Amino acid sequence: MKSLQDSAVAVVGLGLMGGSLALTLRAKNACRRIIGITRDDRTCQAALARGWVDVAGAELDLAAAADVIVLATPVRTILAQLLLVGTIACEGAIVMDLGSTKREITRAMQDLPGYLEPIGAHPMCGKEGSGFDFADADLYHNAVFVLTPLERTSPQTLAFAESFAVTLGARPVTLDAVQHDRIVAAISHLPFALATSLMTTVEELTRDGDQPYTLAASGFRDTSRLAASDTTMMLDILMTNRENVAAATRACAHYLDELADLIAAADEPALYALLQNAAVKRRTLKSSI
Amino acid sequence: MKSLQDSAVAVVGLGLMGGSLALTLRAKNACRRIIGITRDDRTCQAALARGWVDVAGAELDLAAAADVIVLATPVRTILAQLLLVGTIACEGAIVMDLGSTKREITRAMQDLPGYLEPIGAHPMCGKEGSGFDFADADLYHNAVFVLTPLERTSPQTLAFAESFAVTLGARPVTLDAVQHDRIVAAISHLPFALATSLMTTVEELTRDGDQPYTLAASGFRDTSRLAASDTTMMLDILMTNRENVAAATRACAHYLDELADLIAAADEPALYALLQNAAVKRRTLKSSI
Repeated sequence: MKSLQDSAVAVVGLGLMGGSLALTLRAKNACRRIIGITRDDRTCQAALARGWVDVAGAELDLAAAADVIVLATPVRTILAQLLLVGTIACEGAIVMDLGSTKREITRAMQDLPGYLEPIGAHPMCGKEGSGFDFADADLYHNAVFVLTPLERTSPQTLAFAESFAVTLGARPVTLDAVQHDRIVAAISHLPFALATSLMTTVEELTRDGDQPYTLAASGFRDTSRLAASDTTMMLDILMTNRENVAAATRACAHYLDELADLIAAADEPALYALLQNAAVKRRTLKSSI
Repeated sequence: MKSLQDSAVAVVGLGLMGGSLALTLRAKNACRRIIGITRDDRTCQAALARGWVDVAGAELDLAAAADVIVLATPVRTILAQLLLVGTIACEGAIVMDLGSTKREITRAMQDLPGYLEPIGAHPMCGKEGSGFDFADADLYHNAVFVLTPLERTSPQTLAFAESFAVTLGARPVTLDAVQHDRIVAAISHLPFALATSLMTTVEELTRDGDQPYTLAASGFRDTSRLAASDTTMMLDILMTNRENVAAATRACAHYLDELADLIAAADEPALYALLQNAAVKRRTLKSSI
């Protein structure tokens, strides 16, 4: 099996995920060489100056020298880059991505040349801020690191990816790409839809002079936090998980309408049961998330 | 004007809000005497043992000795207690509450005997945990402290309440009770409705074996946090702000359906505009909440 310690790793995209990956690999002295690839010249210079990468540049061709290529760009950029990676990567290279939806990406990976070793990944971590400036050596620490192997993914490549995740301090979990996309629609993309719709509702419902945000406390702050997410990244996620996200969002709108009906009708027994059920469930999760 | 320094303050209800109030008044040596009133015997003993109160007991009659009575119980308990306070409180006593909805409470305060000085209040602060055990000397620090004076509230009583809030380290803001209830429906009660409906949706949408919470990261954690709120307290809030909360919840359900439609139709320009608008707005709030 390929050894990470002896590998040259190309990190494509040096935003929050890619920047934190380069930083963590370097801090742990986990690999032989780190190649940073980004179109942002300022980021190239900063990554080199901080010693997070050994080489940096804008051209994907730099990935030709890598044993492991990690695509850490927005989902649809990954889809476009996979077409090029197929013509660039050297024989036996592991091609991994960190995109937030997995079905379309693993489908595209299926078409890579047979001498490459593709596997999908999705580390379940994030931060309020995005971009290289928010890169964080602790981002992956203790995060669930979902791996979505393809049918063609070899056991060796899966084992390498698991070990890669563990090296970062993360917890590898293997899932089918279709199942992954259905789950994250509910547990990750729906919360973003709720935060965005909360912002829209507050803007539309309050009147001139209400100054609603004066009364915003920690509850509003936390529930609306995801609305500040990077729009390009989120648009890619929503567009590559459309059916699942639309279904989850509609289901939640339906439950909200039911809740509004119970409140309007002052149906306290039904309301108590509904709220208490959610409260008990949420409290049992408290320590685990 | 009455001086807080010379006052005996009765705190009715020693949960998160009342317990933190007694603790803060004591820590700042802000008043002459603190009377703690709660039906929970264990809490009485603990509050006495920690020195947060000078007297503690289960009977509201203890408030007869107070210059300032602060009702820190759930909203509908406050409504019931106001009837008794009218027969107990001594002449000139300030009667304040900390309830999360203000229209019904200020209406009930209107019926207090003319020799009492009522004013509504709602400190915009909270915590994940509720109850005396979560009492926190910093809870009120820098929190917006909404005051909803009645028509009968004297300028002296309003000034006293403002000074009371400032003493706690909070920022007094005067609002009409009707306007308050409309704003908090959107900025506080709707976020709770969203968190609860998120829990319901995840439970209903995922299948056996999905283990959705394995993939829950900080986004889900924050967006769902309010679902763990105390059910009795929230039921009181919803039941005393029914029209506003039902309207806000239905409006948000409508925007969610619109969002689902845009996603399903892959209408990227409209989706980008909607998401970017919410993102920009949320980012401008970042430092202020």
